Amino acid sequence: MSDELKEYCGLFGIYGHPDAAQLSYLGLFSLQHRGEESAGIVVTDGQILSKHIGMGLVEDVFKPSDLERMKGYAAIGHTRYSTTGSSMLRNAQPLQVDYSRGSIAVAHNGNLINAHLLRDELEAHGSIFQTTIDSEVILHLLANPRYARFEEALVDTITRIKGAFSIVFLREDELIGVRDPNGFRPLCLGLLDGAYVLASETCALDMLKAEFVREIEPGEIVIIGKKGIRSLHPFPPTNPSHCIFEHVYFARPDSVIFGDSVHLVRQKLGRQLAREHPVDADLVIPVPDSGNSAALGYSLESGIPFEFGFMRNHYVGRTFIQPTQQSREFQARVKFNPVSAALKGKRVIVVDDSIVRGTTCKTRLKSIRDAGAKEIHMRVSCPPIMYPCFYGIDFPTKKELISCTHTLEEIRQFLEVDTLGFISLEGMLSAVNGKKANYCTACYSGKYPLPFGPEANKYILERKFSGEAHPVSAETPKKP
Amino acid sequence: MSDELKEYCGLFGIYGHPDAAQLSYLGLFSLQHRGEESAGIVVTDGQILSKHIGMGLVEDVFKPSDLERMKGYAAIGHTRYSTTGSSMLRNAQPLQVDYSRGSIAVAHNGNLINAHLLRDELEAHGSIFQTTIDSEVILHLLANPRYARFEEALVDTITRIKGAFSIVFLREDELIGVRDPNGFRPLCLGLLDGAYVLASETCALDMLKAEFVREIEPGEIVIIGKKGIRSLHPFPPTNPSHCIFEHVYFARPDSVIFGDSVHLVRQKLGRQLAREHPVDADLVIPVPDSGNSAALGYSLESGIPFEFGFMRNHYVGRTFIQPTQQSREFQARVKFNPVSAALKGKRVIVVDDSIVRGTTCKTRLKSIRDAGAKEIHMRVSCPPIMYPCFYGIDFPTKKELISCTHTLEEIRQFLEVDTLGFISLEGMLSAVNGKKANYCTACYSGKYPLPFGPEANKYILERKFSGEAHPVSAETPKKP
Amino acid sequence: MSDELKEYCGLFGIYGHPDAAQLSYLGLFSLQHRGEESAGIVVTDGQILSKHIGMGLVEDVFKPSDLERMKGYAAIGHTRYSTTGSSMLRNAQPLQVDYSRGSIAVAHNGNLINAHLLRDELEAHGSIFQTTIDSEVILHLLANPRYARFEEALVDTITRIKGAFSIVFLREDELIGVRDPNGFRPLCLGLLDGAYVLASETCALDMLKAEFVREIEPGEIVIIGKKGIRSLHPFPPTNPSHCIFEHVYFARPDSVIFGDSVHLVRQKLGRQLAREHPVDADLVIPVPDSGNSAALGYSLESGIPFEFGFMRNHYVGRTFIQPTQQSREFQARVKFNPVSAALKGKRVIVVDDSIVRGTTCKTRLKSIRDAGAKEIHMRVSCPPIMYPCFYGIDFPTKKELISCTHTLEEIRQFLEVDTLGFISLEGMLSAVNGKKANYCTACYSGKYPLPFGPEANKYILERKFSGEAHPVSAETPKKP
Amino acid sequence: MSDELKEYCGLFGIYGHPDAAQLSYLGLFSLQHRGEESAGIVVTDGQILSKHIGMGLVEDVFKPSDLERMKGYAAIGHTRYSTTGSSMLRNAQPLQVDYSRGSIAVAHNGNLINAHLLRDELEAHGSIFQTTIDSEVILHLLANPRYARFEEALVDTITRIKGAFSIVFLREDELIGVRDPNGFRPLCLGLLDGAYVLASETCALDMLKAEFVREIEPGEIVIIGKKGIRSLHPFPPTNPSHCIFEHVYFARPDSVIFGDSVHLVRQKLGRQLAREHPVDADLVIPVPDSGNSAALGYSLESGIPFEFGFMRNHYVGRTFIQPTQQSREFQARVKFNPVSAALKGKRVIVVDDSIVRGTTCKTRLKSIRDAGAKEIHMRVSCPPIMYPCFYGIDFPTKKELISCTHTLEEIRQFLEVDTLGFISLEGMLSAVNGKKANYCTACYSGKYPLPFGPEANKYILERKFSGEAHPVSAETPKKP
Repeated sequence: MSDELKEYCGLFGIYGHPDAAQLSYLGLFSLQHRGEESAGIVVTDGQILSKHIGMGLVEDVFKPSDLERMKGYAAIGHTRYSTTGSSMLRNAQPLQVDYSRGSIAVAHNGNLINAHLLRDELEAHGSIFQTTIDSEVILHLLANPRYARFEEALVDTITRIKGAFSIVFLREDELIGVRDPNGFRPLCLGLLDGAYVLASETCALDMLKAEFVREIEPGEIVIIGKKGIRSLHPFPPTNPSHCIFEHVYFARPDSVIFGDSVHLVRQKLGRQLAREHPVDADLVIPVPDSGNSAALGYSLESGIPFEFGFMRNHYVGRTFIQPTQQSREFQARVKFNPVSAALKGKRVIVVDDSIVRGTTCKTRLKSIRDAGAKEIHMRVSCPPIMYPCFYGIDFPTKKELISCTHTLEEIRQFLEVDTLGFISLEGMLSAVNGKKANYCTACYSGKYPLPFGPEANKYILERKFSGEAHPVSAETPKKP
Repeated sequence: MSDELKEYCGLFGIYGHPDAAQLSYLGLFSLQHRGEESAGIVVTDGQILSKHIGMGLVEDVFKPSDLERMKGYAAIGHTRYSTTGSSMLRNAQPLQVDYSRGSIAVAHNGNLINAHLLRDELEAHGSIFQTTIDSEVILHLLANPRYARFEEALVDTITRIKGAFSIVFLREDELIGVRDPNGFRPLCLGLLDGAYVLASETCALDMLKAEFVREIEPGEIVIIGKKGIRSLHPFPPTNPSHCIFEHVYFARPDSVIFGDSVHLVRQKLGRQLAREHPVDADLVIPVPDSGNSAALGYSLESGIPFEFGFMRNHYVGRTFIQPTQQSREFQARVKFNPVSAALKGKRVIVVDDSIVRGTTCKTRLKSIRDAGAKEIHMRVSCPPIMYPCFYGIDFPTKKELISCTHTLEEIRQFLEVDTLGFISLEGMLSAVNGKKANYCTACYSGKYPLPFGPEANKYILERKFSGEAHPVSAETPKKP
Repeated sequence: MSDELKEYCGLFGIYGHPDAAQLSYLGLFSLQHRGEESAGIVVTDGQILSKHIGMGLVEDVFKPSDLERMKGYAAIGHTRYSTTGSSMLRNAQPLQVDYSRGSIAVAHNGNLINAHLLRDELEAHGSIFQTTIDSEVILHLLANPRYARFEEALVDTITRIKGAFSIVFLREDELIGVRDPNGFRPLCLGLLDGAYVLASETCALDMLKAEFVREIEPGEIVIIGKKGIRSLHPFPPTNPSHCIFEHVYFARPDSVIFGDSVHLVRQKLGRQLAREHPVDADLVIPVPDSGNSAALGYSLESGIPFEFGFMRNHYVGRTFIQPTQQSREFQARVKFNPVSAALKGKRVIVVDDSIVRGTTCKTRLKSIRDAGAKEIHMRVSCPPIMYPCFYGIDFPTKKELISCTHTLEEIRQFLEVDTLGFISLEGMLSAVNGKKANYCTACYSGKYPLPFGPEANKYILERKFSGEAHPVSAETPKKP
Repeated sequence: MSDELKEYCGLFGIYGHPDAAQLSYLGLFSLQHRGEESAGIVVTDGQILSKHIGMGLVEDVFKPSDLERMKGYAAIGHTRYSTTGSSMLRNAQPLQVDYSRGSIAVAHNGNLINAHLLRDELEAHGSIFQTTIDSEVILHLLANPRYARFEEALVDTITRIKGAFSIVFLREDELIGVRDPNGFRPLCLGLLDGAYVLASETCALDMLKAEFVREIEPGEIVIIGKKGIRSLHPFPPTNPSHCIFEHVYFARPDSVIFGDSVHLVRQKLGRQLAREHPVDADLVIPVPDSGNSAALGYSLESGIPFEFGFMRNHYVGRTFIQPTQQSREFQARVKFNPVSAALKGKRVIVVDDSIVRGTTCKTRLKSIRDAGAKEIHMRVSCPPIMYPCFYGIDFPTKKELISCTHTLEEIRQFLEVDTLGFISLEGMLSAVNGKKANYCTACYSGKYPLPFGPEANKYILERKFSGEAHPVSAETPKKP
C-alpha cells in the first residue's frame, strides 16, 4: 500500500544528440512515477543554458512550443517529489545559476543529511538562498572561489556533502553524473546513436531504445563531453547500501536496478512470502499495480490460482471530486472496485508490497469482504516498516507507522483479516542476487549505514521522531 | 486491441436521493470507459431542470461548485462517444428542452437506424434541429401535440424509433428508463437507500454501494416517480440480440451484464481459446488491460504460467507530445514497455480481446520480439471482425478492417508471429450462460438481427460500406 | 452613469469576401461595447455553415485557430447582452439550425414583445425549445412547412413578430438583413471591395475601411446573394421610433446612426444643457468616457474651460478583486481617480449622460468633493429616466430608478451637489437633425410607440413593474 | 507616442496594517502603468515572509485565494518591466532570500550602472546568480558577512551601487525605503490609519485614501518598524537629477511627483508648446490618453477649441488577433478610430507627448487625414529624443530613434504633416516649478548627470550604442 508514499525524484541526462530536449521529455515521462509534483529540463547548445520548469506532471509542464524552443545537444531533466524543501515552483529542479565559470544546472535525487549544517556555514560566509532544496547548497559549494579548476571544485563539493545523492550536472559543454559512495539511489548509463544517456532507471533507456551500458558505480563521477566519457573515483572504497525499497516499491517493474530485474525480484519476494506464510486458499489476488509481481510469485510458488480481484479505474486524476459526505470505504471504491463474481465465497490471499499507515489497506480489504470473500489472508512482500528514512523516502513519522504502534496480532485485528504475514528481513534479502550486506534496510532494521553527527542527529530527532515530519509552513522560519 | 475503437455511451439515472447530482457524478465516473468525449448531468428539484455539460472527461467537466449548484432529488447523466453526430459541445448529452408539457431531458446509448428518415419527416413538418444526435429526434417525436397524455406520447415515440437504444429521460418529477426490444445495449436497475438508480453497467451501482435489483428488460419502459416504479411493455415479444462485443471489450470486467459476469465470460473465452488453439509455450501474457481476463483463462486452461509481459504507463494523457520524428514503434513504447527480464528467450503466448486494423497490434508484438521473446503466438478472444455495426459501435470501414482484406495466413505474416488463432464464433458464444441465439454477432457473422428498410439501407451502404465512415466535415451537409 | 446598464447586442454580416470570418471578428470587436457577455460567428462556404461561439469578450472567445478553421465568403456575427433569456452559453448567438430547406443561422438585436405568446403557440403545435432567446422563436416560425418558398416564410415570419428587432440571417448562400418597421435599433449597409457589409453601427465599417452606403430602412428586408442585393418592404408605412438612448449612451461617438454623428449629437446635448442650466463655475469636467462629448459641448457653449477631472484606470477587467472590507467610495476610486491638483478649490460642473440608480454617481461626486472641489454642479445630458423599456434596454425596475422614487430636489440632496440639472425632453430632441416625432422617448415620457396587447401587457406588468425585472433563476419555470 | 515604450517598474510598501497584502494589491493596481509584465507581493507576519509573484497584469497574477493566504501586517509589492534582465518569471520581483540574518525581500525601480561590475566581483568571490536582475546583486552585497549589524550592511550596500534606484526592502519586522542620491526615480511616503505607506507615485496613496506625507528625499533611507520611522542620510549632498520623462510620459496625470502635479505640468507643456509653435487651425486634438493634458493646455493657451478626434477602443487586450493580411493602417484603427464627423474639412492640431520611432505616429496621422482633415499640424510636448537612457528607460537604440536619423524637415515629410513643432528643452523645463538644474534631460541633451567609469562605459557603449539594445536571447551569455 505504498501508494500512500509520495514518490521522490527521477533524473535524466543526455549528451550528444540533436533532439536533447525532446528525448529528455520522453525520458522524464518514463520516470514520472518517481515524482509527480514538478518537472523541468535544462538544455545547452554549447553556449547558453535554457530552462523550462513547472508544477505538475511532465505532460502538463511541457507544451510542444516549449520543447521546440529548447535547441541543444545536451540536457538534464528532473521529476520531483522532494523530501526536503516544500512544494513550490521555486523549489522545482533542475536549478540553474550563473557563477564565475559561466552557467551550470543541477538536478538531485536523494537527501543530504548535512544540508542544514552546510547551509548555516554558507550563510555565515555571506551566501543567500532563494530555495530550500539541497541542490542550492551544492551549487554554492561548487562556486567557492578557492579552486583553480572546475574539477577540483566538483570533487571537493561532492566529498563535502553527506547522505544519499544521485546527481546530474549540466555545463555549457559537459554532462556530469554523480552517485554517492553508498549507492543509495540508482543511476544508470546508456548509449543512443552515439549519445550518452544518464537515467535513474533503465525503463527510461528502454523508452528511447537506448542501449543499457552499466550503472554508475557508487562513489563514481562521470564527466561526459566532446572528448567522450571519463570517470573520477574521489572516495575511499565503501560498502554499498542500496535502498532495498527501490525494489520493493519505487522502481518500475520493467527496470533493472542494482543489477536485478525489479519484476523478477518482486516475483521472488512473492515466492518467498508463499514459503514463509503458506495458507490454504482458493485465489491469490494483488493490490494493483504495486502488488502484481509479488502476487504472481506467490501464486506460482503456492500453486493457488492468480486472479484479478480488483478492477482499477485509470481515470482517477488530480481534480476528482471526493464524495465528502460519504464514508471512507466509498473513496476506496473510486479507484479499486472488487470483482464480486470472482471473489464470492472464495478464500482469498491478498498480496501487497507494504503496509504504511494501514488505513487504506483496511478499507480495500473491507471492500473484498463486502464482495463476498469467505476468508482473507493478507500477505506483505516487505517486513514491517518501523524506522524513518533519512536517505530520501518520505515515510510518515513513527506515530503514524502502524508497525511501530501495533503488534502483529493488533494489526491483523485492525485490518480484520483471517491471517496476516509479512516477509522476513532475511527472506526479503534472499530475493536479490547481490550480497545482502550491500543493501540499506534501515526502515525495517533501524541499522543506518551512514552515521550522522550529533548536530544533524539533533535536527533529525526533532524533525522526524517528534512526529512533526511535515512542518505546516512551507517557508523557512526566522533565524534568531 | 480494441482500444483503437472509441467507446460510445454510458447512462446513469437516479430518483429520490438528496445528493442526486453528486451521485450521478460518481456513477458517470465509473462509466467513463463508455465515453471519454463529453459528459453531462441534468438534475431536477421537482420544478426546474438544471443542466451542466462539457467536453472531456467527467473529472474535467465538473468542478465542485458545479455540483453544489445542482440541487435536486433526481438526475440523469451521460458520458459520450457518439457514433452519430460529431464531436462538438452542442452534441453533448443529456439534451434538455422546453415543450408544451414543461421541460424534459434525455440521454441515449445506441444508434437509431431510422433516425435520418424520422428527421427528414420531422423537418418536412416544420421541425428545426440544433444538433445532429438521435436524442433530438426522440424529443421532437415526444412533443407531438396529438397526444393527450405524456405516456401516450412516450409509448408512441418509443415504438416509432428503430435500432439499438437504451434511454433515460428526466421530467420535473419523473425518471424514465427505456430499453429497445432487442436489448442490444445494457441498462440495469438498482436501489440505494430507497432511491432508484439506472445505469448502463452494474459497476456504477457498486461504486455507490447500491443494490443490484435487475436488468431493465428488452422492450421495457420503467417510469419512476413519487408513487414508486411501474413498467410498460409496449412491444410484442421479440428475441433479444444482446451485443456480444459488450462482453468481449466494452463493459468493465467487474460488471454483470446480460446475466453474466464480464470478467468470468472473458476468462471462459480465454479457456475456450486455449482449447481451440493450444500451443507449447513458456508464458501467457495479456495486452493490458483488455486482454487480462482472457489471458488468465488461457493460462488456467493450458497450465502455462501467466506473466506480466507489458508494463503499462498510466500517465499517458490527452496532451502527451508524440515524438514526431521517431518511428511508430517508439510511440507504442510510450504506453506499453515490455518487461525484457521476463520475456528474454521465452516462447510467449500473447492474448488480446480483438484485432481491428492490426497496426497497433503489430507494433506491440514487435516490441516483445525486440525484448528477446523466442517465439510469439498470438491468440484473440473474439472471431475476426468483418462487418460494420449499425447498432452503436464505431468500427472502421471494411477497407480498414484487416480481417476483411487479409486471409488468416496473411494476417499472421503481417503481424510477424509464429502462430495466430482467433476463437470461433461457436466457441465465443459458449462462454455466455444464456441462449446463444440471444446475442447479436453481426460484426462477425454479417447476420443483422434487425432489418433496415431499403431507404435506410441506401444511406447505410453509402456511408459505411463505401469506406467513408467518418465524413471529414463535422457539419450537416446542405439539403437540395 | 449609464455604465450601470448592461449593453445589449451588436450585429455584423458580410457577403462576398474571402476573409469573411476574420472581418466579422474585427467588426464584432468594434461592436464590443454593445455586448460583453458572449460572442459568436457563423460562416458559410456556400455549402456548409460553421459556427464558433463562446462566453466573454470577442477577444477571449476567438483564438487564431478558430478563425483559420472558419473558411467561407459570407458570415454573420453577434455580441450579446440579451434582455431576454439568461446568461448562458446555450443562449449565445448566432443560433444555427437545420430544417427542411437546409441550414440557417440568425442573430438578433432588440426585444420581441410577443415572444412569449408565439412560444406558447408554437409549443402547443409540438415545437421544442432549447434556449430562451427570441431568435429560436423566429427560426421556428421560419420553418413552418406551409410556405412553398423561403421568401414567403421569411416575410410571414417577420410580419408575425412584434417589437424592436434588427436581424441578420445567414443561409448557405445568402445574407439577409431585417429592421423592424419602427426602426428602433440601428442597422447599416456598407461596401468593402465589392463585398456587402451589415453592421449595427458605422464604426464597424470604419474599422474595415468599408464605405458607408446607407442605413437599412425601417421595415426593410435586404437579401444579398450571388446576384447582388435586393429589398423587400412587406410592411405598411409607419412612423419611425428610433431609440433616442442610442444617441445618449449606447452607440459609439465615432458612429453615425439615424442620420446623425453620435459625437456631434452629444456635443449639442451638452450645448443645450448649458443653455437650459447655466451656472457660474471654474471648470467643466466629464464623467469619462460617456460624458466626454456632452461636457465638451457644455464647455464650448458656456465658455467655461473643459478639464480632465477624473483619471480613468484602463486596467480594470473582469477578474479584479474588489476590496470587500472597504467602503463603496473605495471601489469607485479603483476605476476613476479625481485629479486633485486640477480640482482643488474649484467650482466644478460635472457632466454625465444619465442617472439611473444614482448610487455610483453619488460616490463619484463624493470623490471630487474629497479632492477639494469647492462647489459641484451636476448636469445630465438626458431627462430623468422614469419608465421601463420593452424594446431592448435592460433598465432597472421602477423601484430602483431614482427619478421614479425621488423629486429633483431629493435627488440633488441625495447626490450632495450644489445644483442639479437634467436636459429637457424638448431640449434633448433638439439635438438630432431628424423629425422629433421619429424618436422613441418612452423611458422618459412613458409614451410607448408600439402598443402591446392585453396578454403581453399582463406579462410585462408582472415582470417589469412589479420590481422583479431579473428573476433569480436562469431557467424556465415549470408549466402547469 | 510613448506607448511604444515599455514601462518599467512600480514600487509599493506598507507597514502596520492588518490588510497589508490586500492593500498592496490595490496599490500595485494603481501603479500598473509602470509595469505590465509581471507583478509580485511579499508579506510578513513578523516571523515568516510569504511571496506570490507571476507574469502578467496585477489583476491576472492574484486570485482572491492568493491574497487570503498572505496574512501579515507589512508587505512590499512590485510591477515590472525591467530594463535589465529578461522577461521571465525568475526575474519577476520582489526577490526574496534567506541569509544569515533571516529572510529579506527587495523590489527595485531604476537601473544600476555598475551592476555588471559588481556581479563580476561577486562571482569572483563565489556568488551564484539565479536571475539577471539588479536586485540579486543588491542582496548579495547585503549578505556580506563582514558587517556586525544590518544597518551597516544596508548603508554599505546602498553606497556601493551606482545609478538610478528607488528600492523597498522587507524584513521580518521592518519596511525600508531607499532613493538614490540623484533622486532619478520617484518614491513617496504616506499614512493610512497609522500605517506607513511607500509608493512610486501618489496615485497609489489616493487609491487607498492614504494621506500624502512627503517624498522620500534623494539619498535618504527610511527604516520603518515597531518603533516608528527613522531616516539615514549616508550620502554627501548632491544635486538632484529627477527624470523629466516621468512628467512627460511615465507618471499618471493624477499623481504628484518631484513636487509637481503631473497633469498640470503637462498642461503647462501644452501651453508652452502653443507659445513656441502657434498655428492657425480649427481644432486641437490629443492622441489619447498620453496627449490629453498637453492638448488641453495648447487649446487653453491658443483659444483653439479642444476636440475628441480619436475614439479609443478600451477592449484591445493581450490576445487580440491582429489582422495579418491587412495593412498597418488597419492595425492602428483597431485601437484608435478617428471621429470623422468632427474632423471633416477641419484644420487640426494634433498633440502628443513624444515621438520615438515615428511609425505609429505616422499611421495615426494618416487615419486623421483619411477622415477628412484639411490640414494637420503635429505638436510634440517634449524635445526630440536623441540619446539612450542609462537610468531606467528602455528607449530604442540610436538607429531606431527618428530624431537621431532625420532632420526636423525630414520628420515632417515622413509624417506627411503640414507643420511640425517640438517643444524646446528650455520650454519643457519651464513647466516644472523646481530648479531646472534638478532634472535629468540626458535623453534630449546628452548630458548624463552621473558619470559612469570606463568599464561600465565600455559595456554600455557595446550594448546601447551599437544598435543591439535587445539581445535576442533571454539568457546570460557564456563567460570566457
